[in-house]
Amino acid sequence: MRTLIKDTVNETGQSVTVRGWVNSVRSYGKLIFADLRDRSGLIQIVGDEKLKGIKEEDIVEVTGKINSRLEKYFNDKIITGKIELEVNNIKILAKSQELPFDIHQPELNISLPVLLDNRTLSFRHSKVKAIFKVQEVIINSFREALRAKDFMEFQSPTIIPAVPEGGAEVFKVDYFGHPAFLSQSPQLYKSLLVSAFERVFSVNKIFRAEPSVTTRHLTEVVSLDAEMGLIDSWEEVRDMAEYTVKYILDQVEIKCQKELDLFKVSVPHTTDTIPSIKLREAQQIIFERTGRDCRQEKDLSPDDEREICKWAEEKYNSELVFVSHFPTKSRPFYTYPDDENPEFNQGFDLIGRGVEWLTGGRRINDYDTILAHVKEWGIDPKTIDLYLQAFKYAMPPLGGFAFGAERITMQILNLANIREASLFPRDMERIDKRLVKIKRNKKDNDKKNH
Amino acid sequence: MRTLIKDTVNETGQSVTVRGWVNSVRSYGKLIFADLRDRSGLIQIVGDEKLKGIKEEDIVEVTGKINSRLEKYFNDKIITGKIELEVNNIKILAKSQELPFDIHQPELNISLPVLLDNRTLSFRHSKVKAIFKVQEVIINSFREALRAKDFMEFQSPTIIPAVPEGGAEVFKVDYFGHPAFLSQSPQLYKSLLVSAFERVFSVNKIFRAEPSVTTRHLTEVVSLDAEMGLIDSWEEVRDMAEYTVKYILDQVEIKCQKELDLFKVSVPHTTDTIPSIKLREAQQIIFERTGRDCRQEKDLSPDDEREICKWAEEKYNSELVFVSHFPTKSRPFYTYPDDENPEFNQGFDLIGRGVEWLTGGRRINDYDTILAHVKEWGIDPKTIDLYLQAFKYAMPPLGGFAFGAERITMQILNLANIREASLFPRDMERIDKRLVKIKRNKKDNDKKNH
Repeated sequence: MRTLIKDTVNETGQSVTVRGWVNSVRSYGKLIFADLRDRSGLIQIVGDEKLKGIKEEDIVEVTGKINSRLEKYFNDKIITGKIELEVNNIKILAKSQELPFDIHQPELNISLPVLLDNRTLSFRHSKVKAIFKVQEVIINSFREALRAKDFMEFQSPTIIPAVPEGGAEVFKVDYFGHPAFLSQSPQLYKSLLVSAFERVFSVNKIFRAEPSVTTRHLTEVVSLDAEMGLIDSWEEVRDMAEYTVKYILDQVEIKCQKELDLFKVSVPHTTDTIPSIKLREAQQIIFERTGRDCRQEKDLSPDDEREICKWAEEKYNSELVFVSHFPTKSRPFYTYPDDENPEFNQGFDLIGRGVEWLTGGRRINDYDTILAHVKEWGIDPKTIDLYLQAFKYAMPPLGGFAFGAERITMQILNLANIREASLFPRDMERIDKRLVKIKRNKKDNDKKNH
Repeated sequence: MRTLIKDTVNETGQSVTVRGWVNSVRSYGKLIFADLRDRSGLIQIVGDEKLKGIKEEDIVEVTGKINSRLEKYFNDKIITGKIELEVNNIKILAKSQELPFDIHQPELNISLPVLLDNRTLSFRHSKVKAIFKVQEVIINSFREALRAKDFMEFQSPTIIPAVPEGGAEVFKVDYFGHPAFLSQSPQLYKSLLVSAFERVFSVNKIFRAEPSVTTRHLTEVVSLDAEMGLIDSWEEVRDMAEYTVKYILDQVEIKCQKELDLFKVSVPHTTDTIPSIKLREAQQIIFERTGRDCRQEKDLSPDDEREICKWAEEKYNSELVFVSHFPTKSRPFYTYPDDENPEFNQGFDLIGRGVEWLTGGRRINDYDTILAHVKEWGIDPKTIDLYLQAFKYAMPPLGGFAFGAERITMQILNLANIREASLFPRDMERIDKRLVKIKRNKKDNDKKNH
C-alpha cells in the first residue's frame, strides 16, 4: 500500500512504502542519502548499499521506517523536514538515462530553446511546474468567477467555415476538399449563444498564423472568453471583467503563494475600483507627462501603455487601468459606437504592468445596425449568416471580454517570454520540435518580412 | 435596477423591473398575457394595450407590480406560478422577425437539419437548452472528480507536427508552408506530462476526418482525458475511470433532474462495483447466449456490445460493464501487454447501454519495450521523439482513459443522433452551414465509400 510523501509526516516510527522520482543523491561514506519526489512533496531517504546505483530521475518504490531527524538536521524548506525514511527495501520502477544538464539547479539558467527541446525534463523543474500550477489556478478561477454569476460554460468550435474579416494570419485546413480555417476567436459563437443562454463563457484554443517570432506571440493560445446579454451599459461589462480579473488575482494569491515566492513576485495591486479613462484622456495625460503627442493615434503604443500604467500607479496606486472609447472605425464591426460621440466606441482594454491584459466592450445588438456595419466594414454577410440570424430573431443588448491564459500567466509571474507560459508552445519555427527549414519562394519571404 | 425573474417571488406587492425574451403571448379581450423568459426562469406578465404588438422572441424590459394570482390560476410548472407581473411600462430592447416555425412546441418535432440551420432559435428551446446544461455538468463533474484526486488540468495542443500511426482520417493544416495536423488524441502529451506531474487530465478538442456521415460520428469532439503515473496495476486505472464515471452520473442526477425529466430518462443504474470481464470471456458468454461465434474476433461488434450489456443487466442489474484484455496487436503500440498472456493487453472499454462509453488501459512505461513496440508497429520514431524522450528519462508505470463529452451526453439523454449533443456539430457535410457540394475526383469518391 503506497503512502503519499506528504502523509509520511504522520507515520513516525511506522513502516511505509513510498514511490517517486529520485530528486538528488548524496553519499557520506557508506551511507547514501536521496530526496524522493512524488506529486505531494519531497522526502529524504537514507540507506546503505541497497541505494547504490540510484541516480537522479530514476523512479523507485522504497519501503522503510519513518524516523525523526535530529533537530540540527531539520529542513524547514520541505514538509517532511523533521523526518526521514530509513530504507529496508528498494525496487526500481524505471531507470533514467544520464541527464543532459542539471535539471534541478535553482534558477534554471538554461536557454529556452534547450528547455523546449527537453520538455519532459524541464517540466520536472520546480519553477517550470510552478508556472503551470499558476496557470491552472488562473483558468479554473476564471470558470469559478463566472459560474458564480450564472454564466454557462460552452465549448467553442475550432474548425470554422469562413473568415469574415479577411484571411490574414489565419490557418487553413483541408476539410474534405472544402476550404476551412482555425478559429481566431470565439466572438461570433459566444454572441450567438447569448441570444439563447444570456451569459456564457469558454476556455478554448484560438489560432493566429502570425508570421513573426517575438517574445509575446504564439500561434496557438488558450483564450478565456465571456459574453453577457440584457446589459444596461458598457460599464456593466467592464465591471464584470474587473470582478473576474480581481477574483483570479485573489485566488492566485491564496493558492499559489509558494509559486509566487519562487518567482519573487506578487500579484498586481490595485484599488477597490480599477481606474478607468477614455483613450483620448489617456493620450492627453501621456502628452502632458512626456511631451510625446499621441493624441490622434487610434490606439496606445507599447510606450503609451507603459506610461499610462506609470500614471495609474502614481495617481491611484494601481497596477491596472482600464482604457476605453477607441475610434469606432479601428475596431471590429460589432463594437458599439458611443451614443454621445459615435466616432468612438464602447470598447475597453485592461492594461496591466505596461501591457494589454484583456479586451472587451459592448457590442451592437440591433439587426439593422449590425447589417449596416457589416456593409461598411466590407464584410461578406454570407460568411457570417449563422451569426446574423441571431440578430434577426432578437439579440439582447450585450457585451463581453476576452484574454489569453498564457499572457496573464506571463504577466503575473513576470516571465520574459510567453513561450514559458505554454506547456507546448507553437510558433512559426516550432511545433514541439524546431521545424526543419524549408525553401521559401519570394512571396513567402515577403510575407515573413511583413 | 433589474430583478431576475426567479427573484420576483419575493417581491409580491412591490414594483420591479424585469428583462427577457417574450416566450409566448395570449390575448383575452383587452387583456394581453405573455410569458417572459430570462436565464433564471419564466414569469407571466399581464397588461392592456401597452403590450399590443409584442411577439414571441421580442426582448423587452417591463416595469410593474408583482401580484398574487388567484389560487385557481396557480401554475406549478414554473417557479413564479403563484404570481404575475402587472405591467406599468414596457420598453422594447430588440424586435424579432417572424419565426420560421413554432420554436416552443413541447416535443420539438423538427428535423435535425432544420434545427441546425436555425441554431440560434433551436438553442432557445427548453429541450435543446437542457442538453447543454447536462453537458456542462458532465464536463465540470469530470474536472471536479479528478481534481479531488490530485490530477492537474492541462491544455493539450491542437496543432501537431506529425501523425505517428499513419495519416488516415487526419486533418491537414498549412503551417507556414510546413505540413501540420489537427490532434486526434492528447494521448502522447498526457503520457509525457505524467513523467513530471504524475496525474493530469484535460478537456480538449480532438479531430477525426472520418469520411462518412453517421449518427455517431463528428469531425470535432470534446475529449475528456485522464492519465496517472506510479500505478500498481491496470485495475487501479479502471477503478479511477469507474469512480470518475460514477461521480459524473451522480452529479447529473443531482443537478439535472429537471433536464432528465424533460427527456423522460434516468442516468444508468449500476452496482457498487461495475462488472468487469475479459474480452474472451465476454465473447464466450455471447456465444452461449446467442449462438453467434465471435470468440476469435479482435473486438466486440455493435451487436456484441448490446448483448454483453443485456447480460450485465440480467446478471448484475448493471447498465455498465467493463470489457478488458484485447488482442495486443489490434490496439495502439503503447498499450501494456498482460504479464500472464502477452497476446492480450491490459486495455479496457466501458460499455454502457449497448455502446462503448470510454476506453482506457495501462500503458508501457519501459523505454526499451516502447522502442521495440514502436518498431514492431511500424512507427517512425522521429515523429514521436518528444514523447520517447519522456521514457528515456524514466516514465513511471502509468495508465489512463478517455471519453467523448458528446457521446456520454447522447447516451445519458438517449438522443438519436450525436449531432444533437454538440452546440455546433461538424461533419463531412456541415460546418455551421451545409457545405456547398464540390466536384469530387475518383480518388475522393473512393475515399468517401471507404
